[in-house]
Amino acid sequence: MRTGEFELIRALSELTPVNGETVVGIGDDAAVVKLRGPKAAISTDALVEGSHFKSEWRELVPELFELLGRKLLAVSVSDLASTGAVPKFATVTLGVTPETEEGELLALYKGLGELARTLNVAVVGGDTVKSSTLFFDLTLIGEVKGEPLLRSRAEPGEVVAVTGSFGDSYGGLVQLLKGEVVNRRLVERFLNPPVRLREGLKAAGLGVKCGTDVSDGLAFNLYTVAESSRVAVEVESSKIPVSDDLVNLLGRQKALEAALFGGEDYELIVTAPEKLAEELEKAGFKVIGRVREGSGVFVDGKRIEPKGYDHFCREG
Amino acid sequence: MRTGEFELIRALSELTPVNGETVVGIGDDAAVVKLRGPKAAISTDALVEGSHFKSEWRELVPELFELLGRKLLAVSVSDLASTGAVPKFATVTLGVTPETEEGELLALYKGLGELARTLNVAVVGGDTVKSSTLFFDLTLIGEVKGEPLLRSRAEPGEVVAVTGSFGDSYGGLVQLLKGEVVNRRLVERFLNPPVRLREGLKAAGLGVKCGTDVSDGLAFNLYTVAESSRVAVEVESSKIPVSDDLVNLLGRQKALEAALFGGEDYELIVTAPEKLAEELEKAGFKVIGRVREGSGVFVDGKRIEPKGYDHFCREG
Repeated sequence: MRTGEFELIRALSELTPVNGETVVGIGDDAAVVKLRGPKAAISTDALVEGSHFKSEWRELVPELFELLGRKLLAVSVSDLASTGAVPKFATVTLGVTPETEEGELLALYKGLGELARTLNVAVVGGDTVKSSTLFFDLTLIGEVKGEPLLRSRAEPGEVVAVTGSFGDSYGGLVQLLKGEVVNRRLVERFLNPPVRLREGLKAAGLGVKCGTDVSDGLAFNLYTVAESSRVAVEVESSKIPVSDDLVNLLGRQKALEAALFGGEDYELIVTAPEKLAEELEKAGFKVIGRVREGSGVFVDGKRIEPKGYDHFCREG
Repeated sequence: MRTGEFELIRALSELTPVNGETVVGIGDDAAVVKLRGPKAAISTDALVEGSHFKSEWRELVPELFELLGRKLLAVSVSDLASTGAVPKFATVTLGVTPETEEGELLALYKGLGELARTLNVAVVGGDTVKSSTLFFDLTLIGEVKGEPLLRSRAEPGEVVAVTGSFGDSYGGLVQLLKGEVVNRRLVERFLNPPVRLREGLKAAGLGVKCGTDVSDGLAFNLYTVAESSRVAVEVESSKIPVSDDLVNLLGRQKALEAALFGGEDYELIVTAPEKLAEELEKAGFKVIGRVREGSGVFVDGKRIEPKGYDHFCREG
């Protein structure tokens, strides 16, 4: 890439929005923003070539970099959604290689900028550095109005409810790794994860105290709730939302495994008193189980191990 | 590296402090913090192997990773200092390679944690990812009590004042790139940059409106002030602070060039009405020149080009 750092930053910053709370955006030593508080939520997520994506997927998905830009923001929005926070400001670090094409970065910022604009998130700064591995790192800051939803606040007797469906993202990744796209919707589910902000804020508004998002797999993230709340979580496999597309791709048994262990779904898990179940279902959640005293995660009464999703490159 | 992500995060988080304003630190989906506001400052900086450091420098400087951890935070503190903001919360992304030794990351966090503790900065979250290039990315969030110091607020007639000395960092880098340490103080100046937070906050308290820090070289950063304030900046070469160590290493003429174009000094530049000059000097600043109407940067009356410091790897 031959454009200088300063020209590139200028071109990219034109693609990203500010908002009414931005006092100083890109271009000074630090961004200065208005945060109403009293509390702020902060989340950071990186996408790294070889661990989270491969540039060669462009051949299968021409809009790859636009989707990666959107995903870079969406995964942090998911963290804030599951905390009950409203995203406000983002900074982005670009690790750029000699092979990176300027068009790829412009596409990345187009996708990022579009989602940022939709959510009224201002991209206020960051860093652009040379690297021999392409990477993007985003920090998102938001406002917490009431009490944050935490993993550690599940109580015995509560219901367990989730948004969306599980395993689709894994079904998309499998196709990308094979180099053959047979079901495009699943591929898009991996590259273009859902943004469950409305659902997260609705749950917070209903007084839900416990929430998390599913980045490492439904089983693993249920386990983080069980462990940090010192409770047991029981779910019924027949209630776990699994798409027909995924069943068609993998078969029913493997689709359920993908739903439990696949990762990168970016759906929400909440636990809440039973009396909130109906309101949660109206807000787009589905009850899949229950919290009880004890420890561990149980599917159809059988304890499952907290197998993690460790992204697809297991070279470590 | 064989330790799992979750065990590693646990070990690292034990090395980093929280503070009284941390509601939720490392371990949930997002950190939750108390920010008094009304304004926050945000800065992000990355250190990338091959661009900002080489792991092989361990052979010359055994405490390399500890210093890099400290530097990772110090360079963002410099951005906040030059904005007049008090640093409060940091998130850290680690891009870890298969060759990265756990001891290196523990050393990194030891250095980072020590400076964070000194400054009462809480390390509240981040991301750990696999990468084929080792990198560290830190986002720092702080509070702005009054008006932020900006590059764009220099006024004709004001004095130009700086902290510390210039070019030492370049003198240290030159030795590391040669693989031979002849003056250790200069090498430490590159790996262990100063933290001019007290000076930045003092300037803000005095009512100074214009400030920036020197990451890209004194000449370049004076140019950013001149350009964004639409003024000219004149400095006298004899007043630019240059250390005897640097003159001994490079000779007087090359030492002055290093001071002007070397970069990574992490000293502060402010401009202020002449009546504040004495107070600024008491606070550790030295007047080196003056702002006037016009454009550009002049040294001893001669216009100089805004040559940038583009780190040491010019492969881009």
